[in-house]
Formats: sequence, C-alpha cells, structure tokens
Amino acid sequence: MAGKLWGGRFTGATDPIMTQYNESIHFDRAFYAQDIRGSIAYARANLKVGLLTQHEFTEIERGLNLVLKEWENRTFEIKEGVDEDIHTANERRLGELIGAEIAGKLHAGRSRNDQVVTDMRMWLRDQFLLLEKHLTTLLQTITSRSAAEISILMPGYTHLQRAQPIRWSHWLLMHGSFFLTDIQRLREVYTRVNRSPLGSGALAGNPFGISRESISADLGFGSVLPNSLAAVSDRDFVLETLQWGSLLMSHISRFAEDLIIYSSAEFGFIKLADAYSTGSSLMPQKKNPDSLELLRGKSGRAFGQLAGLIMSIKGIPSTYNKDLQESVEPLLDHVKTVSDSLQIATGVLATLSVDAARMHAALSPEMLATDLAEYLVHKGVPFRETHHVAGRVVALAEKRGVAMDKLGVEELRDVDPRFEDDVLRVFDYEASVERRDVTGGTSREAVKKQIERLKREVREGGLSERV
Amino acid sequence: MAGKLWGGRFTGATDPIMTQYNESIHFDRAFYAQDIRGSIAYARANLKVGLLTQHEFTEIERGLNLVLKEWENRTFEIKEGVDEDIHTANERRLGELIGAEIAGKLHAGRSRNDQVVTDMRMWLRDQFLLLEKHLTTLLQTITSRSAAEISILMPGYTHLQRAQPIRWSHWLLMHGSFFLTDIQRLREVYTRVNRSPLGSGALAGNPFGISRESISADLGFGSVLPNSLAAVSDRDFVLETLQWGSLLMSHISRFAEDLIIYSSAEFGFIKLADAYSTGSSLMPQKKNPDSLELLRGKSGRAFGQLAGLIMSIKGIPSTYNKDLQESVEPLLDHVKTVSDSLQIATGVLATLSVDAARMHAALSPEMLATDLAEYLVHKGVPFRETHHVAGRVVALAEKRGVAMDKLGVEELRDVDPRFEDDVLRVFDYEASVERRDVTGGTSREAVKKQIERLKREVREGGLSERV
Amino acid sequence: MAGKLWGGRFTGATDPIMTQYNESIHFDRAFYAQDIRGSIAYARANLKVGLLTQHEFTEIERGLNLVLKEWENRTFEIKEGVDEDIHTANERRLGELIGAEIAGKLHAGRSRNDQVVTDMRMWLRDQFLLLEKHLTTLLQTITSRSAAEISILMPGYTHLQRAQPIRWSHWLLMHGSFFLTDIQRLREVYTRVNRSPLGSGALAGNPFGISRESISADLGFGSVLPNSLAAVSDRDFVLETLQWGSLLMSHISRFAEDLIIYSSAEFGFIKLADAYSTGSSLMPQKKNPDSLELLRGKSGRAFGQLAGLIMSIKGIPSTYNKDLQESVEPLLDHVKTVSDSLQIATGVLATLSVDAARMHAALSPEMLATDLAEYLVHKGVPFRETHHVAGRVVALAEKRGVAMDKLGVEELRDVDPRFEDDVLRVFDYEASVERRDVTGGTSREAVKKQIERLKREVREGGLSERV
Amino acid sequence: MAGKLWGGRFTGATDPIMTQYNESIHFDRAFYAQDIRGSIAYARANLKVGLLTQHEFTEIERGLNLVLKEWENRTFEIKEGVDEDIHTANERRLGELIGAEIAGKLHAGRSRNDQVVTDMRMWLRDQFLLLEKHLTTLLQTITSRSAAEISILMPGYTHLQRAQPIRWSHWLLMHGSFFLTDIQRLREVYTRVNRSPLGSGALAGNPFGISRESISADLGFGSVLPNSLAAVSDRDFVLETLQWGSLLMSHISRFAEDLIIYSSAEFGFIKLADAYSTGSSLMPQKKNPDSLELLRGKSGRAFGQLAGLIMSIKGIPSTYNKDLQESVEPLLDHVKTVSDSLQIATGVLATLSVDAARMHAALSPEMLATDLAEYLVHKGVPFRETHHVAGRVVALAEKRGVAMDKLGVEELRDVDPRFEDDVLRVFDYEASVERRDVTGGTSREAVKKQIERLKREVREGGLSERV
Repeated sequence: MAGKLWGGRFTGATDPIMTQYNESIHFDRAFYAQDIRGSIAYARANLKVGLLTQHEFTEIERGLNLVLKEWENRTFEIKEGVDEDIHTANERRLGELIGAEIAGKLHAGRSRNDQVVTDMRMWLRDQFLLLEKHLTTLLQTITSRSAAEISILMPGYTHLQRAQPIRWSHWLLMHGSFFLTDIQRLREVYTRVNRSPLGSGALAGNPFGISRESISADLGFGSVLPNSLAAVSDRDFVLETLQWGSLLMSHISRFAEDLIIYSSAEFGFIKLADAYSTGSSLMPQKKNPDSLELLRGKSGRAFGQLAGLIMSIKGIPSTYNKDLQESVEPLLDHVKTVSDSLQIATGVLATLSVDAARMHAALSPEMLATDLAEYLVHKGVPFRETHHVAGRVVALAEKRGVAMDKLGVEELRDVDPRFEDDVLRVFDYEASVERRDVTGGTSREAVKKQIERLKREVREGGLSERV
Repeated sequence: MAGKLWGGRFTGATDPIMTQYNESIHFDRAFYAQDIRGSIAYARANLKVGLLTQHEFTEIERGLNLVLKEWENRTFEIKEGVDEDIHTANERRLGELIGAEIAGKLHAGRSRNDQVVTDMRMWLRDQFLLLEKHLTTLLQTITSRSAAEISILMPGYTHLQRAQPIRWSHWLLMHGSFFLTDIQRLREVYTRVNRSPLGSGALAGNPFGISRESISADLGFGSVLPNSLAAVSDRDFVLETLQWGSLLMSHISRFAEDLIIYSSAEFGFIKLADAYSTGSSLMPQKKNPDSLELLRGKSGRAFGQLAGLIMSIKGIPSTYNKDLQESVEPLLDHVKTVSDSLQIATGVLATLSVDAARMHAALSPEMLATDLAEYLVHKGVPFRETHHVAGRVVALAEKRGVAMDKLGVEELRDVDPRFEDDVLRVFDYEASVERRDVTGGTSREAVKKQIERLKREVREGGLSERV
Repeated sequence: MAGKLWGGRFTGATDPIMTQYNESIHFDRAFYAQDIRGSIAYARANLKVGLLTQHEFTEIERGLNLVLKEWENRTFEIKEGVDEDIHTANERRLGELIGAEIAGKLHAGRSRNDQVVTDMRMWLRDQFLLLEKHLTTLLQTITSRSAAEISILMPGYTHLQRAQPIRWSHWLLMHGSFFLTDIQRLREVYTRVNRSPLGSGALAGNPFGISRESISADLGFGSVLPNSLAAVSDRDFVLETLQWGSLLMSHISRFAEDLIIYSSAEFGFIKLADAYSTGSSLMPQKKNPDSLELLRGKSGRAFGQLAGLIMSIKGIPSTYNKDLQESVEPLLDHVKTVSDSLQIATGVLATLSVDAARMHAALSPEMLATDLAEYLVHKGVPFRETHHVAGRVVALAEKRGVAMDKLGVEELRDVDPRFEDDVLRVFDYEASVERRDVTGGTSREAVKKQIERLKREVREGGLSERV
Repeated sequence: MAGKLWGGRFTGATDPIMTQYNESIHFDRAFYAQDIRGSIAYARANLKVGLLTQHEFTEIERGLNLVLKEWENRTFEIKEGVDEDIHTANERRLGELIGAEIAGKLHAGRSRNDQVVTDMRMWLRDQFLLLEKHLTTLLQTITSRSAAEISILMPGYTHLQRAQPIRWSHWLLMHGSFFLTDIQRLREVYTRVNRSPLGSGALAGNPFGISRESISADLGFGSVLPNSLAAVSDRDFVLETLQWGSLLMSHISRFAEDLIIYSSAEFGFIKLADAYSTGSSLMPQKKNPDSLELLRGKSGRAFGQLAGLIMSIKGIPSTYNKDLQESVEPLLDHVKTVSDSLQIATGVLATLSVDAARMHAALSPEMLATDLAEYLVHKGVPFRETHHVAGRVVALAEKRGVAMDKLGVEELRDVDPRFEDDVLRVFDYEASVERRDVTGGTSREAVKKQIERLKREVREGGLSERV
C-alpha cells in the first residue's frame, strides 16, 4: 500500500541507484594486494588455533595468490552488482577457484569492519615510504641549489615590499625548513598508521583465541591497536594524513606564490623551464606558469578533503557506521595529489633558471636604511632614535629624487652630525648580508651551516631504515 | 648545466607527471556536448560578421555534429598527451574531419578561457533542471505521506529528550520546509549560472564585432556577463552551487540522523525497506541503515568540495589563473552526490514503514507537563508560577513512582489548590496536539494548511517553465 | 559513592566552568533591543487573545521600555551566574521593575527556542541594511573612479603574465561586477532572514490561539515561518549569511591581492594613502599595505566561521539542540568582519593614487601579438595559422633582441608574406583596446556602458525601499 | 583632487575604522608576561655583546618588571590609538618608567616580526602543560570508572543497531584509546612549538652578533629555528595546534553523541548529574544534556578556526605579511575551547550515573546470532554456511514471534541437524563477552589489560617531566 501511495519506482525490492551509492569496489579495489596479504595472514592465524587444517590453509593461500595474479595481470573480472567491495570480490573469486567449502572458512571471526582498516593501513604505510622519498628529493634539490648558488643576492620582502637584501639560497632554505618539518611529521604519523586492527571482528574482538600480536608481526605492523571498538571505528590515521598533507600543501602554495610573482615580467627573477610552462590558445606570446598555479590551487583540494572527512566523522555514534566509507576516496586522491605535487615542485625547482642580474638590479639603496640606523647604534645612539634618523634620510633622498647612497656625507651629517665618513661603507649589499651572521642569518657561513643542518635532519629517523 | 647539478630526470624538455598533472580531458570530457554546441553558436556569430563564409560555417557545423556523434556512440578516441582538454580534443578531431584550413578558423577571437566557462555553465544549468525534479519528487513524497498519515502521533524531541506530542506529519513537514528553501535557492542561483561569457576572449573581449547578445540567445542563456575580465575568472557560479548543495546536504544529514535514531531497536519508530538496508558479513541478525548513514556522511563530502574550492580561489590574482581548473572536478562530483542523495532520500522515505503503535507507546504523560502548566494559565495564574507548579507535579509523580496522569485530582490539589476536576482532561495526547492550532502548529488543520502551502510553493517559479 | 571514586571537585551540585561554558549573555546581549521589542509584540498578541489585561500589557510595555533605557544608558547590571542569556536577563529585570506577578505572565506559550531566533533575525535584517549601504558606497567608488580615469591604460594579466592591454577602469569594473552580485545575493537572503518564528513555542506551536501573522506584522517581518519544529531549529539564515559573506570576502581577497602586487616596487602601479599603510618597527624605509593584507587574510576568518557552523549543525537531531548556540558568536563576528572590510576596501580604493605613467610603461609590444594574429585573420588566414605566424614573430623579436614593434615590415614579411604596410598600425595600445568594443569589452564605449549598467543594477531592488 | 572626486570621509590622513581594523592590543595583551620575559632575555643578549651597559640592562630589567606588575595588578593603562599591540604598549610604558634614552635601546636588531612569535610560542607551550593535565585527568576518570564498573554489560552497537554484547568499561576504554593519542600528539607538537625565533629580526637575522642559542636557553626553548625568513613567517605551530585540537574535539563529539543517545528516554542507559543538565523555560519536565550538546557543537567551532587560518595562510608570499595577524585570535579561543571542553567532558563523565539494569535489559538474544554461527564453526562448518544457518534461526524466531533463545533444540535442529544439546549454552551474554579474550577484546582479563596499558601510556613521555 505504501508503494501505491508514494511508490512509483520504489518497490522496496531494489533500487539501482542505491546499489551504486552503496558499493565501494570502484575505489577500494586499490587495496587488492593488501586485502589478499591480510587474508593470508588471517588464515595462518586460524591455522595456528586449529580452525583450519594445514591443507585448507595451503589451498586458501594458493587460491589467494591466484587471485592476486589476476589483479596484477588485469584479468580479474568484477561482477557488477555482486562484488560490492574488494573483500567480497576477493572472497567470491577465491571460492570459485578453490571451492566454497574451504573458502567459506576464511571469514570466521573476522568482519569487513576490521578487514577494511587493515587494508587501508597497509596501503597507506607503503605510500608513506614513497612520500618520504619524494620529499627527500625535493629537499636535496633545495640543498644542491643552495650550495651552488650561494653567491646570488636578491631582495628579501616583507609585505611584498622590499625589506633587506638576502641570499637566494636563504630563500630556498626557508622553504626547505618548512618541508623538513613535513618529513618529520610524516615519520610521526607513520607510527600511528602502522598499527594492526586485525582480530577486532565487527566490534567486539575475536572469539577463537587467535594471536593478534602474531598477525600483526606477520603483516609487518609496529603494534596492535588496543581496543576492538576503537580499532574498527578509528579513522584518525586518515585524518592525520589529510592534516599532514594539508599543511604540506600550504607550504607548497606559498612556494608557488613566490615563484609565480618572481616569474612575472615585472619581477623577472626566474624563468620556468618549458616543461613546466604552457602557452595560450589565443595569445601567441604567452608562457604561463601553469605548474605553479596548479600547485597553489591544489592546496585547496587537499584541504577540502580534510574538511569533508572531519565533518563526516563529527558527531557520529561510536564504532563502525557506514559514514566511514567516505574516508577512502579522499585518502586515495589526497595521497596522489601530494605525491604528484611534490614531484612537480621538485621538477619546477630543479629546472628553473635564475636571473641573478635582475635579482641584483632589484636591490635598492633604501633597503639599507636599517643598516644605516644600525651604524648609529654602533655609535651608541638608541635604536629608536636611529630609526627616526634613518627615516629622515630616506625622506631626504626621496625629496631630492636621488638614491639614498648618492647623498653625500655632508648631506647625511645635516640630518645627523654623528654620521662620519665611514658611513658610506654601509651602502654595500654584500656587506649587509654578511653582517647578519647569527644562526639562521644571511651570511655565507650561516647559510652553509643551514645547508649542513638540513641535510643531517633529512637523514635522521628515516622510515626506510625502520622497515 | 642546471640539469647536471640537480637534474636527473628533469631535462627541461618534458615531464610525464606534468603532462598528467596539467591535463583535464579525463574530467572535462563531461562537457563534450556543450563544447560542441557552443562552438557551433560561435561559428554562427562569426558567419554573421563575415569571418566565415556560409560554406565554411556549414562545414564546421557538419563536422562538429560528426564529432558529437562519435562521443555519443562512444567511438571518439582521445589522443593521449595531445588532447589535453575537451576543447583541444574537439577542435583536433574537427580538423581531421573537415580539414585544418576551415577548422582552423573556428577559434579566431575566442580563448579556452571563455570557452570552458561557457561549457560549464551550459552543463550546470541542465543539471539544475534535473536537481529541481529530484527535489520536487522528494517534496511530493513528503506531502503525500503527510496527508496519508496525518493521524499518527509521536513524541516531539528537543535535545533528544521527549518534549511534547506532535504529529508524524508535522515532523515530515519540518524536513519539507527545509527542502523547500533548497528548491527556492536553486532557482535563484540558476539565474546567475545561466549567463553567457562567450565573446570575452582570453580576458579583453572580442575584436571582430560579434554580438555577444546573439550568441547568448542562440545558446539559451538568460543574459550576458557584463565584464570580460570577470567573465573568464568568475567561478562564483560553481561556488554558489557548492554552497547550495552543502546547505541541502546539511538538511539531509539531519533528516538521516533522525531516521537512524528512530530505526534503532530502542526507538523502533520506523523500519527501512530492504532495498535501503544492508546486512553484516559477520553478524547474521543485522539490518543496518547504510543508506541513511551514507546520506549523513556525504554531507561532509559535499562541504569539503566547497571548502577546497573557496580556498583554491582565495587570494589569487584577477582574471584567469590555472588554479581555476580545480573548479571542475568538485563541481562534477558535487552535482552527482547531491543528485544521488536526493533520490536515495526519496527512496528511503517512500518505502520505510512506520510503527505507529511504538510511536504512540513512546508518548509519556510528563510530556503534557506544559499542558498542565497552561491549564493554570487559563485560570489566570502567571506562567512562571504554573511552570513551577507543573514541575512539582512531575517531581511528585517521579517520587511516587507513578505516571503523572495516574495521580489523583486530590494529589494534584495538594500541590496547587487551583487544580479542578477538569484537569484530568489535560492528559490526552490528541487534545494536546489539537490545542496548538496556530499557523505552523500541530493541529490537524494547521498541518493540512502546511501541506497545501508546501505544494503551492514547490510549484511557484519552477525552472522548467522558464526554459 | 560515584563522587568518592572519581569525583574530586565534581560533586554533582555545580561546576563553575559549566556555568560559564553554558551561558550566552556575554554575546547574546547584542540582541537586547530586539529581545525587548519582540517581547512587547508577544505581549500585545497575548492581550488580543485575553491572556493579558490591558493593564497588564501596559505595565509590561512600560517595564520593558525601562529595561531598554537601562541598556541604552549602559546602566543595566548583569547578574553573574543568574542572567545566563539575554532573555533571562530582560525578564528578570522586568520582574524587578513591575513585579513578578505580571512579568511572570509574559512567557506563557513562548520558549527561549522561538525567542532567540526572533531576536537574531530582527538583528540581522537591520545589519543587512547597513551592509547594503557599505556595498553601495564601495560600488559608487568603483563607478566614480572608472568614469574619471577611463583613459588610463594598463596591462591586463592572465597567469600574472602580461596578456593584453586593458583600461584601468575595466579592471575596476571587473571587481565591481563581483561586488554587484554580492549586493544581489544579499537581497535574496534578506527575504529568508526576514521571516517570523515567534509563536512556535519550544517546538510544537502556541496553544493560546495567538495570531502569528499579527505578531509578524507588528515586528515588520515579511512572512511567517511555516512549521514550528523547523522554526526553532532553523539556522539556515545564519549559514546563508556566512555563505554570502564568505563569497564576498573571497572577492575582497582577490581585489586585495591585485592591489598588493600592483603596489610592489617592481610593479609600482599604485600607491596607497598613508591612512591605509603602516611602517616597520625595524626598517625605516618601509610602507606596508597592511590594510590590504588584512582584507586578504580576513577572507579566511570569514570562511572559517561558515566551516565551523555548518560542521556544528551537521548531523544533529531535529528541532532545538544546544549545539545551535554556537551559531551566535560566528554571526556577530562575521557581520562585523564583512562590514569593516567593506569600509576599509572602500577607503583604500578611494584614496589610492594611480601611477598612470608606470602602468603605461608596463605595456610591451608582445602584448599585441594577438592583434598581429588577428590582422591576418582579417586577410582570411585561419586563426590557428595566424597564431603560429605571430608566435614566430615573437620568437624573431626575442632572438633579435628588439621589441616586436621595432621589426621592419620586411622582416615581418620574411615570416609571412601576407603582412602588408598597414601592419604597423597594429602596434598601438589604444587602438588595440578600442578594437574590443563588444559588450563587456575594453573600448571606451563598452566601458562606459558597463558603468551605466552597474549603476542601474545597484539601485534595482534595494532593501531600503522595501522596509 | 582624488579626495574631491571620491573622497568624502576618506582624506588620506586617517580612518578610525582602519586604526581599529589594524590593531591587535585587544587580543595580544594575553601575551603581556611572555613579551616582557622575552624582552629581558633579549636585553641580556645585547648586554653580552656590548650593545647595552650593565646599568642600562639593569634599568631595562627593573622597568620591565614594573610593567609586568602593572599588568598583574590590572593597573596597566592601554593608550587607545597609540598602543596598537602588546609590544608597542610595553615599550611605550617602559620608556615612561625608565626614560626613552635607555628604553630606546631595547629594540636594536629586533623586530615585532620575531617578537610576536616568540611571545606566542612561549604562551602556547605553557598552555600545553595545562592541556596535558586536563587530558590526564579525563583519562584517569576513564580508567577509574573502567576498573570500578567492569562487570556492567551493555549492547555494543554498529550502525546504531544492536550488534554484540560488550562491557561498559570496554566502551569507556574505546574513548580512552582516542584520547590517549591526543596526549601523544600533544607531546609531539610541543617539540615544534618550543623553538626560538628570537634573533631573526624583521626577516634577515640579527647584525649585532648576539647568540640566538643563549637567548633560547634563557627562555627555556628546546632549540633554535634554523632560518630567519622562516622563523618570522612560520605559523605552523598554530596550525598544528588547531589540527591537534580539531581532532581531539572530533573525539569529544563522538563521545558526546553516544552519551546524548544513551541518556534519551528510549535508551535510558545513563543519567547526567544536575550540574551538567539544564531545564526548559517552557516545559517543566525537561532535563536536557546541554553540556554534551555544547561539547558536540564546539567541535565545529574548533575546526572552523583551523579552516579559517589555513585559508588565510594559503598562497601568501613568503616571510611576514599582515595576514598572519589572523593567527592570534583563533589560537587563543581554540586553546580555551579545548581546555574548557576537556574539563566539562571529565566532569560529565565523573558524575553521570549508569543504569546497569537498563543496559542489561537492552541485551537481546539475536545479539548472540554470531555466537550461534561460531558454535557451528567449532564443529567444523565453514563460517559462510554457519552465517546463513544462524540467519535462518533469526528468521525463524522472528516468524514464530519468540526470542531466539526460546526456540527449543529440536527447532534449531530442524534448521540444521548439527546443533546439539550444548547449543543452549550459547545464549549467555557473560559467556559471549568472555569468549572474546584476545588483545583488545571484551573479556574481563582483556579489559583489565587495556586499563593497565592505558595508564602506562598516559604516563610515558609526559611534558611536565621535560620542563
């Protein structure tokens, strides 16, 4: 009767849109290998407690390896409307290959709830190794260029206004210092990703006395998740990855913004390689920094995935709810986005050419106003006063329409009698940069130390050594 | 030399990851039909100003229609690494079909910058018609059930605590009132989507004197975007769509949350049809409301797309930047997510069964405490005082361990002597509901008026009548 | 006993942090006037149905007006720990002024649930009038400058690379076209804000037969919300405002980004007035565009408020839940942020000075490569071919190290023999701009029409005429 | 002239809204103590390199301590329109107290750019100690209740449908396992917060040879930030805090959601203490879990602050830009929100009462269907088959209208002949829970081990031991 009143196509029997809305096979197939490896480890654990005979285990292992081959050879056929997820697909195929009698024993005490997060965690930790590699390459590109081009000076900006002269290497290492924390955070998150949920069942744990520690070791996990309810409902490892990637992409967005501005005709500090530029379908003269704009733009995409998932998870009841299925797609795309972006950023940086002459030409004497003020500080004048004095010099030069370093000593002395002949030595960009030789400063030695420190910290605690 | 220092695979010539990072054909192919229709209209405009001869136009039209057929028949072959976007693909194929001499005349004065937004806007406005249809169906399901099941009473909740009795139809119409504003907002956004950017060129407008108004009319747009710089860089129509969909999905999330709670064993108010439930791979007794959980969860996905894009667009310089390419994928997925979700929500609602007996059993006498207080208001007692009196009655019943309506008149009179014999009539859920007969209230008449008003407002200003 | 085990300071009696966590008086006091006006209207409705005598109503009205005066004179004393919200505070004070016997009658049939949204909606619609005013002023500043400075040419950019010459006014009107839609959206949202929830009670409606329509008219609302459950739980009017403001602020962020870049030393197109710049505590020469950076940065703040609230609301059960209290603070700050930002943007724009000479100097001949290609289109050459020809001319000029307009006709003819003597007329920026004279293009007439259209559309449908 | 055309109130001289829009004193005054402590350390460093005499340093130290006292005694007077930020305010007051001659020497080589992040980092690391304390108390409350109430059984839910019996302690420890990672993450972030930027100047480092390491040690920082450009522009320590808090609040939102549902009349598992509940202004019987709803709602607020700031920072050019000022207010409110929420969550949990009888009554025999299937697994039947057998038993009981455990052995044998007399032992909730005795499972021993592990991990690596 309900059907008669408001039914139409809704008969209660089936809704094709629902089938498609519900199924995950079109994206969780990414985990086919992890799913199979996890099932073999689970079967081995069941062998140990006597739920499977040696023969049954051998058959399951053989069958699952056949399924794996089919995926690898791209001959696995997904049954539409039947294989709703990767777990169902693999188990269905296993049954066809070795018979349902044995295949049907695999799932005892296990649930797709603990299975899916086992798959995701195994997949993700492998990706982390790749991501670390890409980050390392980017950081090596930064240290290489920094070392090779340490002599190039350029304007340092605050508020996009010329502030003080710096080394181009110092600018590179600024970005390097951000990317270094990305690699350090990656290593921290890895530890929490690499924990085993298997053996948690649907929510309450396994009733057959299997050893979760032994499965965990079999699968290369670092430790076992401590609570079965949490193990099946925890998507923090995804959220942490999205947070990690969002922060990394925000670093990339600032890196890209700088380079986009520096590659404008007006700045002209750098030129992108052709491989990372594109032309216009209308304007013949254009060479556009599309790579950098995509890097900048994709920081939004990466963050949107975090925003979406944290909202999906907010306020849902504990343990498994289907809302959690929404964690898979953002994770897959996020990892790809970050991975691609790191490689593009590296490629852009490795191949761009620097126009040292235009960088130098953009240095202007008023950028040494601070040095002028500091000159008087050395003579014992309070900085607040020297700041005003230097300000008056800037104003005088502006009024006179000449560069500040073209004012004579006499003119400077009219502003403040404490200026002496040696004041003219202030107007030397190289000297200015060398004066800032504290830790983290712009002097050649300070920059060299930064390079060494960065190289060392990239190496320390690498994931590849742990595995 | 750069290559030697930090090059490796980066030769400056080409980077395969960059090709893939940059191209959009794998998603903007969705616009193939709009792209072709737009090109025909553009060619017609060029015919009018003499840039094309009649023969050339006829050839272009014929060729483009052949390309369209190939897409429709799924015989169009995308050239990997060449067809970077749908515009390039279509123009490349046109040249193969009619010769480059004529095909090469199509793009004069046009840019992919104005072309892509023309495509997107045409595609989106068509989707709006479908979305309006789905919303209308959902609203009709609501009004149908509301009318048919108007007699069913249930507890109304605030803070998920039983508050006052209401009609089930009143609950349905609450959600209806939210979805009604979604349809109204859709119609408002439509007007801004349905504006023509074509003829804006790369940024500065068309130099051949074509009539943008005539193209706009040809393509069924409602008006012409007023500024060429804005026309190519405006992604507000996408952001507005994502904002619209995020709000709609937040309505769906609350609708789903209610129904998930109502379908728990403890509430037991409704039962989902099998088509919208799924079982457990481990627990044989389970019937889970996966459909509703996905509806709730996808509200995050929808919002994440808004969050991502608005962040991508934030702070970029004016006119076209490649960051804007990040607007396409979220739009496509968002529209699909909302469209699917509306259909699932309709299906769930149309087929669920209501357990009127359990709803009624959940009504409890203390839910009439307010009516008890209002009884005394009618006797002239200030409400603040009656509120305390009724509170004392609730406490008495709790202390005595009986339902409030099982207290005798004498016991009530001990609490407050102004209670008279007619007080017992207060304890009648139907009467309580009928007492709230103001506009928007719970009485049968008030609910019927809501149904009529909702039906009327759904009809008013429909998009399909405008097209 | 529970207390003994894990109690400590938690005695069950009271938790001072909870009191502060729960109360809203420190922010909802912003609605004091609306709360009082709403209460008077509600009392009047109760007078009409006989719940209040004329005397009681007069007393309530008199008392509430006294309370209002206290707020206005800043003599209202909030009782800490008692006045948890503005409703409680006003009713408490009313009782002190006119006696609890009459004051206690005010709340019959009403709840803080319908009261708070009545307050918020009244407050917000008043703010919308102010916001419309600020937007109008900004748009007037844009049209004034556009008209006055229509002769100034500047480079138009795509990808922050010089693209084609445009008018400075065209750039202004681009931003104007975005802000125009903000004013149009504001007017749409206003209609949904300006609806009356009063008479919805806690959730189920009013039992005393008051006329919601009459209250609505009394308070100047445009219509009555149709469903009591929805009326108390609807925060869409807040979300819509935050969406509106987020979009507006994203426009402001792009406006600010352009101007920040244009005010760099390297571009040098504009100079900010001192009032909107600040200096450095260290570097004497600095003049920083802090105003613009704050405008750009606050687009994040505005969006964060939307992100926060939509997440707070996602998935909560229907009708009132205390989560909704989280809607007030973001609304208050958002409206202030947008309001201030509009005024700052107007001030910046009204007072900045344009360096027309530097703008003109930044025009470079290769920006006319498209015009060169189009020259050949007029001779019947397919655009795709002319695009390549012009590209070769650009390359030739680059190779020769001269500006493109300094190549002789013979040299051009070497590239393509179809170039004739009149080709040199292409190299004229003013002519190029005038050629784009379609609707929305760069020609003087096209720009003038834009100004007139913008002025007209700002006026149409203004809120102030509706009230 | 500009003023004449579009000026009005904008004279270029001053804009009062700009003053207020720009200044930060109303929120960065929170850092008054850190600012003073940082200045003393900076002065000491300047003493060491001879920029200050011993007398000058002593005077500065004495003066700053006087300023500190004024803040502590709430006698510090902020000069409106002059003291734009805490740095300006403190230095202005120092000058008044000890004379401008000496006070004016303090700022040599320092900038507000490195000063503000020094203040923020010092303030934040102190807050981290408090946050760790609050988290520890919450976790102790969880372990205490878990130990004391380990015997209480309740339904475990997936999809909010009854799934399998669990211990109430197991549910508590699930939330405990999430909060444990919050404390671990807090400790990781702390290390990155606790790094010294001082000595980085405006962007390029300090020119007077001070020792950044010595200042860092003086202020108790763990290390020195490696690059001056990064040091002044890095707001990752804020973003990481907001990410940390957003994840923590998402845990709190799920904790609150569970308890809100469990405290509904329909579930009735728990009762909140009066201190964490509130009543209704209209409905006398109501007792609402406002505390939990605010906890749930504030997860949105916390995330909104992250969303806002990451968007503000996205794509801005490198080093200091005024956009970064937008990092302060979200940080202050975020830390307060999380801190309050942890205390409220602890209070709620410590004082709620559990209705063990209602929890037990909600256990229903079909929740043992999995155990029934597993009974047959022990007899060697493949799980996939037993799952179907148990499903048929569930269906039979439903059809017969009796509870599953009321079916006789004969009836079970009709479904599957492999059921033997011992099958009836399956229907025992306690036995079911005990069967799941793997790590992280529901058995008494497994839960006890969880408690011990949690206690141990809370203690390990505590911040208070580092300081």
